Formats: sequence, C-alpha cells, structure tokens
Amino acid sequence: MARIQTEKDVSRKEVILKASAKLFREKGYKAASMRDLAVKVGVEAASLYNHIRSKAELLHDICFNVANIFFDHILVVETSDEPAISKLESLIRFHIKQMIENFEEVYVNDREWRYLSEPYFSNYQNQRRSYRKRFAAIIQQGIEQGQINKIDASTAVLIILHAIGGIESWHRSTHKISGEELEENMVTILIDGLKK
Amino acid sequence: MARIQTEKDVSRKEVILKASAKLFREKGYKAASMRDLAVKVGVEAASLYNHIRSKAELLHDICFNVANIFFDHILVVETSDEPAISKLESLIRFHIKQMIENFEEVYVNDREWRYLSEPYFSNYQNQRRSYRKRFAAIIQQGIEQGQINKIDASTAVLIILHAIGGIESWHRSTHKISGEELEENMVTILIDGLKK
Repeated sequence: MARIQTEKDVSRKEVILKASAKLFREKGYKAASMRDLAVKVGVEAASLYNHIRSKAELLHDICFNVANIFFDHILVVETSDEPAISKLESLIRFHIKQMIENFEEVYVNDREWRYLSEPYFSNYQNQRRSYRKRFAAIIQQGIEQGQINKIDASTAVLIILHAIGGIESWHRSTHKISGEELEENMVTILIDGLKK
Repeated sequence: MARIQTEKDVSRKEVILKASAKLFREKGYKAASMRDLAVKVGVEAASLYNHIRSKAELLHDICFNVANIFFDHILVVETSDEPAISKLESLIRFHIKQMIENFEEVYVNDREWRYLSEPYFSNYQNQRRSYRKRFAAIIQQGIEQGQINKIDASTAVLIILHAIGGIESWHRSTHKISGEELEENMVTILIDGLKK
C-alpha cells in the first residue's frame, strides 16, 4: 500500500533534488550514478527509491522546474507596461541572478537537458524555442520603438544568453568580484556597451 | 632511415590536422579514435603514422597553432597607435572572424585543451592566463583614458569571450544570418550596447 505523502517527504525530495543538481553539474548526468547521489545525500542507495523513481526523474524535475521559473518571469515582463528596453534589462538581470543564485540547477538545465527521454526531450526543445522567440520578440519591439540598436533579434538572444552563460567560469574564478558587481558589469556591457 | 620531408608530406599533414579538428569537435578528443580519423581522411589507420606520431600530437598541434594566431594578433594590436577602444574592437572582430572562418580549430582549442598532456597542459594554461591579462590590460587602458565604460576588466574579458563563443550555436543554427552580419551584430551589441 502506498504511503500518504507527508511534508517531511516533500522536503526530503527537495534535498535529493538539490544534491542531484550539484552531482550532475560536477560529473555530468550520464556519468553520475545513484550510488554517487546516495553518498552526497548521506543515505543508502536503496533508500533513495522511497523518494524518487529514477535518475531520469531527477533530471526531468530539475529541467522543468527551471523552465517554469523562466516562463513565469517572462510572462510578467511581457504583460508589464515598461518600455521594451527596460523589459530587456529585466530579462537580462533575471538570467544573471538565476545563474548566480540558482547556479547548479540552471547549469544542469542548460547542459544536460539533451539527455531527457521522450516525450520530455521534444517537449522541452519546443519550450526552449518558444522562450527564445518570446525573448527575441521583446528585442524586436524595442528596435521598432527606436529604444534598441538595430540588430538581428534572434542573434542578439543567442549572444546575450551565451554571455550570461559565461557566469559559469565566474563561479570557478579565483579573482572573484561580488555577485552584485558581476550583475552591474554585465548589464553595463550588454545594455550600455563597452564604449563610453 | 628517416625519409626526407617533402612539400607533399607537409600538405598531407595539414589535411590530417584539418580532419582531426573536425573529428575532435564532433566526437570530442577523448572519444575520437585514430580509426575514426583514418575513415575521415580516407586512408588506412596504419598509414596515418607515416605523418603523425599520435592522437596527442594532433591536439597539441591544433592548440599551439591557434595560440600562435591569437598571440601574433594581440602583439600587433598592442604595438599599434590606435586608441584603446579601437584596439578592443580589433580584438573582438578578430575573435569573431576566427570563430567563423577557423571554427573547428578554435572550437577544439577552447574545449579540448584540458586533455593536453604535460608539460604542454601547464604551459598552455599559463599562455591562456597571459593572453587574458593582456586583453584585460587593453580594456583597463581604455577605462583610464575615458574611452571605455567603467567595468571590471577581467570580468569583461570573460563576458566578451563567452559571448563570442556563442558563435558555436550560430554554426548549428537553421535561421542563419551571414558571417558579416553576425560580426556587425556582435560588435554593435558589445561595443555600442543594446540600448540606442
């Protein structure tokens, strides 16, 4: 008979998810084993299965949690009354903050989503495309309103997201400026440009 | 007795190097085999060894060739009389062009250099640090001369190089603007910023 899920079970699952994100980032999803995860969580491998069904479920949960965070945010941005350039700045700041504060999950989401099994893989691929289109549409709006420099909007999205992805090496860097400084540096470069 | 190296040998080696860069990008250095390379070149695996000693030698050659290209260029930039902001633009354009025109080699250099064996690995790591320091020094010079926005120069280098690294996905993209357009888009975003 299935046990009734308690609050304690939910928080236990969150601990496992957090540990799996860290593990998948360090080892890669493919190479990571449930045994590695058990060591990280500090339990027997067998007892992990009281809380989750499989390694695949963990990747699935990480990716779809991250997707929800970004889709919720872009919806708020789209429906706001801000000018397009402020919307763009808000998107950029949000991506930077997520890369700083929610690093393990966002990193795993970005690098390991290709290991999702079907139907999640195709579904996820479509969500990524859709997110980028909506991001590009905000840039396009800003170009048409004369607030954003004339550029190819889809290409701009790729450039912006890759620049922000570079925060990965900031996490590993020994010469480390603070998260706030990093955010301000990135916003200055991307929004105002390098040229004074 | 060793054969005397002819011009034909040199160009044969170049063909092998080119093919190995493509192979290492597609499969990764670790996973790629000399057999895979022989198939790509269209010869027997054994005959590759008339031209090269090992898979390691190929990675070594690719990385040090790429390093030479960038070091030669930054030296020209450093010794020119241009203002710092123009020097920076020249560096950015050079990186973009290399990512477009010399893609396989630059990509392999960036991703796979960690598989270099010693003493090349440590030597190469130092060269990378040195290159970034010289890149950052040009930005710092521009900040001090009031030509470049006040940012952390080392962080700016990371952001710029990651943004340019994103050209990797342009190569895979179906919605493809031309190389020239890509360069102009990137320069606009990085130098002038997104804000009009």
